[in-house]
Amino acid sequence: MQHGGNIYRFAQRLGCQPEQVLDFSANINPEQAVDLSSLQHVQLGAYADPDYHLLKQAIRQRYPYPSGVDSEVFNGASSAIFALLRSLQPKDLVLYTPLYGEYAHIAEALGCTVHNIDRFNRLFADVPERSTVIFVNPSTPDGQLYDLQDLLATWQAADCTIIIDESFLDFCKADSVAEHIAHYGKLYVIKSLSKFYGCAGIRIGFILAATSAINELKRFEPAWKLSSLDMAYMQQALANSAFIEQTRQQTAHLRDLLYQALQDSGLFDTIYPGQANFLLARLANGNDGFQLQGQLESSRILIRVCDNFAGLDKSYVRFAVKNEQAIAWLDHAFKNILSAPSSYIQLG
Amino acid sequence: MQHGGNIYRFAQRLGCQPEQVLDFSANINPEQAVDLSSLQHVQLGAYADPDYHLLKQAIRQRYPYPSGVDSEVFNGASSAIFALLRSLQPKDLVLYTPLYGEYAHIAEALGCTVHNIDRFNRLFADVPERSTVIFVNPSTPDGQLYDLQDLLATWQAADCTIIIDESFLDFCKADSVAEHIAHYGKLYVIKSLSKFYGCAGIRIGFILAATSAINELKRFEPAWKLSSLDMAYMQQALANSAFIEQTRQQTAHLRDLLYQALQDSGLFDTIYPGQANFLLARLANGNDGFQLQGQLESSRILIRVCDNFAGLDKSYVRFAVKNEQAIAWLDHAFKNILSAPSSYIQLG
Repeated sequence: MQHGGNIYRFAQRLGCQPEQVLDFSANINPEQAVDLSSLQHVQLGAYADPDYHLLKQAIRQRYPYPSGVDSEVFNGASSAIFALLRSLQPKDLVLYTPLYGEYAHIAEALGCTVHNIDRFNRLFADVPERSTVIFVNPSTPDGQLYDLQDLLATWQAADCTIIIDESFLDFCKADSVAEHIAHYGKLYVIKSLSKFYGCAGIRIGFILAATSAINELKRFEPAWKLSSLDMAYMQQALANSAFIEQTRQQTAHLRDLLYQALQDSGLFDTIYPGQANFLLARLANGNDGFQLQGQLESSRILIRVCDNFAGLDKSYVRFAVKNEQAIAWLDHAFKNILSAPSSYIQLG
Repeated sequence: MQHGGNIYRFAQRLGCQPEQVLDFSANINPEQAVDLSSLQHVQLGAYADPDYHLLKQAIRQRYPYPSGVDSEVFNGASSAIFALLRSLQPKDLVLYTPLYGEYAHIAEALGCTVHNIDRFNRLFADVPERSTVIFVNPSTPDGQLYDLQDLLATWQAADCTIIIDESFLDFCKADSVAEHIAHYGKLYVIKSLSKFYGCAGIRIGFILAATSAINELKRFEPAWKLSSLDMAYMQQALANSAFIEQTRQQTAHLRDLLYQALQDSGLFDTIYPGQANFLLARLANGNDGFQLQGQLESSRILIRVCDNFAGLDKSYVRFAVKNEQAIAWLDHAFKNILSAPSSYIQLG
């Protein structure tokens, strides 16, 4: 449950409301594509269409895929990952790290043998034959966008099942690998819609795969798993095409501001050039991210310490791209830390 | 997917809107406990509390259970059943029939050996030692409410895992078996909230079980599976205590009206004395429920033929309790059938 911080416990500790927390820990777009008042006329009395026809249509319109490919919807990407790995039952699972803990957590629950490959230093390391590989693109917590052509060829040569998590791809101008499914039947694309559409509370994610693979996945899915309110919300969000370019431009602009604030603080020796809606930074002199987290607490700012990303330690912290006021407030909080006489941080 | 009829395909065939269908096929309370406009201020940007604290608190307040017992929430009862059976992996599964198809469907997907026991004629038949038994109380499609004391003793003597589905219990004045969990650790209570609270589109159901059993179940659950909108809705619904007695009284009154309409039609030789929000009836002379379904189609009435309930055939039809206007319209539609010169139905 370390996806972002738990703002509820954080707020409880600070004696404030969860809405008052400036949550830089969860990488969720601060803007939303839909006005909630538009949901007032959703019919709740009847069971929803068990085939999710309108929702799947909206997904395909927004994320086109070739014939021979199909989609299945889930209660968020985390549910999708669980369902997919449970269905595939991989013996060997290759995780490209750093990577958020959810994949390793699920792999452990399902008894897979996990092989970590360090993206930063050994990107083209050999993978076990017929293993299942998982790659998040752009990656988290660093936000690096990869051109996957060579990796796809390597994985295919080893006859791997390939899972590409494109939950942050919408923030970049880059192509999905969904096109490749038509040529390689063991390729799956997983996508969370919460990040880009700013709605972690709406639980809809999806998988694209070969039609036969999707049919196999569906066998183990319960009937009527999705909320009718969530579906109505997401159908509207997906149809809001103005939101796409607007979000990309705004995220790029705000990411620059955030980068500047991090740089100006002088606290970090590395700030990674992320392409998504968050930035990874490493504290100078191996300083402790949890101490920084503690120092920001009185400003009601919650940040993400990346010690539980395989390959990283507690000197790595991640900041989500938030709005201008929030970034200004973070900037201000950094300056307070630096001017405090008891500040533990040695400037590099 | 035969829980109720698919009103979307039905409406498409008739060339009308799904809202225009009088759906007697799905046993959902026509009244709702919550006004959708109250959801306008739900925060969607943040991840919901991963422990579902407020929702679980509202569940416990509404459905008290003893210490040593805990709850886990799911995306509806269908998801709960799937998760529970996947976790228990029963070899022998005893289903008390007639029973809706979902259990058999899931049992098949999971490769269980299914033993059907006919509730109507062999209620106290022996069950395999250490098998997993499933009993829906009140049962569907007939709505019979059982006193489970003797059955519980029988199942416990055979060291069974016991799953009681109480999705329709709220319509009756009767006690849950949840109290027994404190004395028998292999007892699970499953509950859909959609039926009583009239909101099939809200996907929240839950399981009550011994704390250790709930912890085991949670291991295989994804993070953040529930919609924040659904949770806000359901917390309000559960807190609406006036709705409970009101719904029970209204359902009893409307069920009497429905019974009368079925009896007056002269089409049926048996109408079962159901205690829930639906009535099962058998067509006289073995007549065909699908033909009756066809005859009611022009009145935009959808009914449920029970041929896919184990032990029943297509002469059995189920009618949900709907509001007065809907029942009057059904009554009218019956009279039209009877007066039609080409009516195939022979009165018994």
